[in-house]
Amino acid sequence: MNKPMFDRVAILGIGLIGSSIAHAMRRGHVAREIVGHAHRAETLKRARKLGFADRLTDNAAAAVKGADLVILAAPVGVFGALAKAIAPHLKSGAIVSDVGSVKGAVIADVSPHIPRGVHFVPAHPIAGTERSGPDAGFAELFDGRWCILTPLKGANKRAISTVKTFWERLGSRVDVMDAKHHDLVLAVTSHVPHLIAYNIVGTADDLSTVTQGEVIKYSAGGFRDFTRIAASDPTMWRDVFLNNKDAVLEVLGRFSEDLSALQRQIRWSDGDALHKLFARTRAIRRGIVDAGQDSAEVNFGRNVTVKKSASRAAPRLSRVRRRR
Amino acid sequence: MNKPMFDRVAILGIGLIGSSIAHAMRRGHVAREIVGHAHRAETLKRARKLGFADRLTDNAAAAVKGADLVILAAPVGVFGALAKAIAPHLKSGAIVSDVGSVKGAVIADVSPHIPRGVHFVPAHPIAGTERSGPDAGFAELFDGRWCILTPLKGANKRAISTVKTFWERLGSRVDVMDAKHHDLVLAVTSHVPHLIAYNIVGTADDLSTVTQGEVIKYSAGGFRDFTRIAASDPTMWRDVFLNNKDAVLEVLGRFSEDLSALQRQIRWSDGDALHKLFARTRAIRRGIVDAGQDSAEVNFGRNVTVKKSASRAAPRLSRVRRRR
Repeated sequence: MNKPMFDRVAILGIGLIGSSIAHAMRRGHVAREIVGHAHRAETLKRARKLGFADRLTDNAAAAVKGADLVILAAPVGVFGALAKAIAPHLKSGAIVSDVGSVKGAVIADVSPHIPRGVHFVPAHPIAGTERSGPDAGFAELFDGRWCILTPLKGANKRAISTVKTFWERLGSRVDVMDAKHHDLVLAVTSHVPHLIAYNIVGTADDLSTVTQGEVIKYSAGGFRDFTRIAASDPTMWRDVFLNNKDAVLEVLGRFSEDLSALQRQIRWSDGDALHKLFARTRAIRRGIVDAGQDSAEVNFGRNVTVKKSASRAAPRLSRVRRRR
Repeated sequence: MNKPMFDRVAILGIGLIGSSIAHAMRRGHVAREIVGHAHRAETLKRARKLGFADRLTDNAAAAVKGADLVILAAPVGVFGALAKAIAPHLKSGAIVSDVGSVKGAVIADVSPHIPRGVHFVPAHPIAGTERSGPDAGFAELFDGRWCILTPLKGANKRAISTVKTFWERLGSRVDVMDAKHHDLVLAVTSHVPHLIAYNIVGTADDLSTVTQGEVIKYSAGGFRDFTRIAASDPTMWRDVFLNNKDAVLEVLGRFSEDLSALQRQIRWSDGDALHKLFARTRAIRRGIVDAGQDSAEVNFGRNVTVKKSASRAAPRLSRVRRRR
C-alpha cells in the first residue's frame, strides 16, 4: 500500500468531480484526511450519507485551514470569489489546484488572490459523465484518462511535480501545456461538442410537427448520444462557455462554415464530397479507439473506467470477442 | 418454440443490418431457409464463414426465387436498380420489404418495379451501431427497438400485418406512419445528428494549431461520442443524405438558426439564456431514459440490446445500483 502524500486535502465543491476525487483518494490512500466543502445543506447531507469525506463543512475558510492541498471543484464561475474567501486562511506552503474545464479565465480569476508562499497549479482532469452531484462520483472516473496541468510561468517545480503525482495516484495520465493552448484544444474536443449537442436537442424539441414523444421514441438512431451529452450539468457548462468565449467562438465559426459547405453538398447532391468526409471521420474514430480513449465494443463504448489496468488495450479484444 | 413464419426469406445486402436480421431470424426460428445476397466476393466469403445464412449468392435474381419475403438491406442508393433486377423473378404473393433509413425516396425508386400480385411494405428498423459489414451483425440488435412501417395507400392489409409480426419476432416494437412524416422525424432524430457529428469531427481534424493526436488524446470530454457516430458506414450515409434532402435541409436550417442564437448568447455573455437551454435539454434526456431507449447507467449507455426482456425498464435500476 502506498504511503499517503498529504495529511489533509480540502475539496471545495463535491459534485461529480469533487466527490470522485475523494473516492479515488480513498482508494489510493492519498491523504490522511479529506475535508469536503459545499454551500448547499442538501449536498452536505448527501455527502455525509455517502461517506467519502472525513469532514464536511459549508465554510470554505474553515475547510482549507491546515490543508496541504486545496482543490477548487465548484463551477468555474465562482472560483474568483472562492479564492478570495479562502486566501487569508491558506497554510504557508500549501498547494492550490483546481479542476476547471477552462484555464485562462481560471488563472485570471484565481491567481491574484493566491498569497505568497502558496503555490497555484491549475489542472483539468478530462473526465466526466452526464450525471452531477455528490451521488454521481466514483473512484474509477479518472482511470486511464488524461489530466492537463497548465502551470504559470515561473511556478514552483516541486508543487507542479506534486500535483502530477497526485493525479497519477488517482489513476490519471498527466500532460502539461500552456493555458491558452489548453483552452483551444478543449474548445474543440469538449466545449463545442457540448454546445452542439445542447443545440440539436433544443432544435428537435422545437419542431412543432414532430412530437417530443416521437423524438424520444426514435432516438436510437443517433440522437440518443447527443441527449446524453446534453444532459450534463447546466451551471457548470454555462460557466464554461462564459469563460472560454474566444476559443469557443473561433471553433464554432469554423464549424458553421464547414456545415454550410456540407449543406451545399447535400443540396447539389455531391455524393463524392459527402463520402470523402464520412470516410475521413471514420479513420479518426479508429485513432481514438487505438489510443485507448474508447472501446471498439459497440455496447460498452464508454466503459473504460471499470478497472484501472484494463482501461488501455485489454478491453478491446476481450469485449469484441465476447460478442461472437 | 415458435413455428417458422416463412419457408424462404431472401436478404439482399448482408452488412450490419442484413446479417443482424439473419441472426435474429435464426434465434426466433422465423424462416426455414435464409438466402443471403451480396455483390462483393469478400462479403460472401465472410458470410459463409459466419454461417448466418443457409445459402449465399451474388445473383440477386437467383436469391429471390421462391422467396416468401424479400428484404432490401443494401444502401438505399441501389434499391431502384435492385428492384428492377429482381422484379421478374419474384414469386406471386411474395412480400418485398426493406430497411432503408429514408422512405419517400425508397418508395419512389422501388414501387414502380413491383409486379402485380407482389406486396411492397417499406420498413425501417431504428437500430444500428457504428460498425458495418457482415461481421458487425448480431441477433440482439433489434431487441426493444422501434421498427417503423410506412405502407403505401391501399396496401394489402395482410402483408402489412405479416411484416409487423416479422419484426416483432425479431425483437422489435412496431409503429406505422406515412413516409413523409417518417422522413422528417428521422431527419431530426438520426440524419441531422449524424451530419453534425461528421461535421464536427471534420472541423476538429482541420484545425492546424491543434494536432490530431491532441484531439484523439483528449476526446473523453464529449468529442468521443461524436466520433462514434461519425464512424458509421460512409456509403450508407451518403445515400441517406442524397435521398432525404428536403427534410434534412429543413432541420439543418433550423439547427443553424438556433446555433447562431447560441453563438450570440455566448458572445454577449447571456448566462441565463444558456442555462435555460441546458436545463431544458437535460429534461429531454430523462424522457429518453424513462422511455427505455437508453440506460441511466453512465458506462453502459448503449447497452439495451443484451436481453430481449431486459431492454425496457429492468436494466436501469439494477445497473444504477451496481455502482453504489
